[in-house]
Amino acid sequence: MPRTPVWTAIATTLAAEIGAGHYRAGDKLPTEAALAARFGVNRHTVRRALADMAERGLVRSRRGAGVFVAAAPTDYPIGRRVRFHQNIRASGRLPEKRVLRVETRPCDPLEARALGLAPGAPVVVYEGLSLANGTALAHFVSTFPAGLLPGLADTLAEVSSVTEALRRNGIADYLRAETRVSAERASPTQALHLGLREGDPLLRTEAINVTPEGVRIERGLTWFAGDRVTLSLAND
Amino acid sequence: MPRTPVWTAIATTLAAEIGAGHYRAGDKLPTEAALAARFGVNRHTVRRALADMAERGLVRSRRGAGVFVAAAPTDYPIGRRVRFHQNIRASGRLPEKRVLRVETRPCDPLEARALGLAPGAPVVVYEGLSLANGTALAHFVSTFPAGLLPGLADTLAEVSSVTEALRRNGIADYLRAETRVSAERASPTQALHLGLREGDPLLRTEAINVTPEGVRIERGLTWFAGDRVTLSLAND
Repeated sequence: MPRTPVWTAIATTLAAEIGAGHYRAGDKLPTEAALAARFGVNRHTVRRALADMAERGLVRSRRGAGVFVAAAPTDYPIGRRVRFHQNIRASGRLPEKRVLRVETRPCDPLEARALGLAPGAPVVVYEGLSLANGTALAHFVSTFPAGLLPGLADTLAEVSSVTEALRRNGIADYLRAETRVSAERASPTQALHLGLREGDPLLRTEAINVTPEGVRIERGLTWFAGDRVTLSLAND
Repeated sequence: MPRTPVWTAIATTLAAEIGAGHYRAGDKLPTEAALAARFGVNRHTVRRALADMAERGLVRSRRGAGVFVAAAPTDYPIGRRVRFHQNIRASGRLPEKRVLRVETRPCDPLEARALGLAPGAPVVVYEGLSLANGTALAHFVSTFPAGLLPGLADTLAEVSSVTEALRRNGIADYLRAETRVSAERASPTQALHLGLREGDPLLRTEAINVTPEGVRIERGLTWFAGDRVTLSLAND
C-alpha cells in the first residue's frame, strides 16, 4: 500500500484543526519554524503543506506577515432561479442590500442589446452592495426596462430586494436565462466598496433574467469579492 | 426624449472602431489629450468613456503606459457536457493540450471525498496547459480513479485529450455533475505557465465529471487566465 507523503499528513492535520475551530478565520498560523518543530520535519516540508492548503483556499499567505486562515467562502448557487436573499439565508447568514443609486436614464448600447430595447430607451439603474452578516460580498449594477416597469425605481429605493420590488410591480417570478463569468482586478472604487485592496481578484458575472414567458426584465452585472464567494453550478 | 450623455457617444464610437478593426487587440489607443481634442470634449469626459469601456472589458488601462485594446476573451460554455477541444473549435480556434505531468499516486483527502474513494486509493494525476491558437488559456490538474481506469495514465501521456483517453479506456461518455467557480491571484508558477504577471486574476473552477450512470471519474481543477476566458452558463 502506498505511503502518504508527510506534507499531506501535515496539511490534513492543520486542516482538521481549522475545521475544529482551533484556528479561526483571520488567525495567523504558527510560523514555518514553529510548525517544523512541532511536526519534526524540515521547513521545506511545512512549506509544501502550506502551499497545498493555500491552493485549496484554506489559508492565505501574506508576504512578510505570515500565513492566515482564510474565511470559508460563501457558496452562491447559480441555477435557474438566483435569489440573493434566499442564497445567503441558505448559508446561515443574514442577507442585506445597501442601495448606492437608483436612477432612470437612457440605456447604453450594451444594455439595449441585453434587454432587447430600442437605442436610448429608458432603464432603471440599481446600484448597490450585497452583504452577508454585515460583510460586503458583492457590488452590483442592474438595469431594468423602465417602460415595462414604470413604478420600479420608487419600489427599489424602498424595499432594496429585487425579487420583492419586481413582485410589487407585477412580476411574480423570473428566471436566469444566462450567466457569463469572468475574473477581474478590483478598481479603486470597488476595493473601497468591498473592503478589498485595489487589484484584488473579483468574480464578475453578467446575467440576464427573464419572465417565465421569456421577456427580458433585468441585466445584472455583479462583482463578487473573489475570496468571499464561490459560485456553484449544479447540473441536475 | 432623453439625451445620450457625451461620454456614452464617445465610448460607442471607439467601441465601433475597435469592432471594425481600426484598433486591434493589444494596440494602444490615442492618449486622453488626443481623444479629447478629436471629440472636442475635456479629458474628464474622455476618462469617463474609457472607464466605461474598461468596465465592459473592451480596453485595459496600464498605469503609466496608456490604454490598450483588450483581446476578445474566449467564450467557454459550462454545461452538461464540457469538452475543451470542442469548446475551442467552436470559437474558431485551434485547441491544444500541453502535458506537464502524468503520474499515479495516493489520493489526498479532498480528492478522496470528491471522487468517493477510500483514503490513499491510487489516482492518476494529469497536469497540463490548455491552449487556443498557441496561447495558454488555462492551467489544469485533473485526478482520475486509477483503480477504475488502470490504463489511463499511459493513454493520457499519448493522446493528451481527456475525452479521447477516457474513450480508449471504456468511458464512451461523461457528464459534468457540478462546477464551483472562484477568483484567485496567479501564483508565480501559474503566471509563468500562463504568460501572466504574478497576482493577475484567475478564474478557478473545480469540476466533478461522472459517467451517465453516476460513477465519479474525474475531479478537475482549472485556472483560466481571467482576461482571456469568459465562462458562459446557459439555462435552457
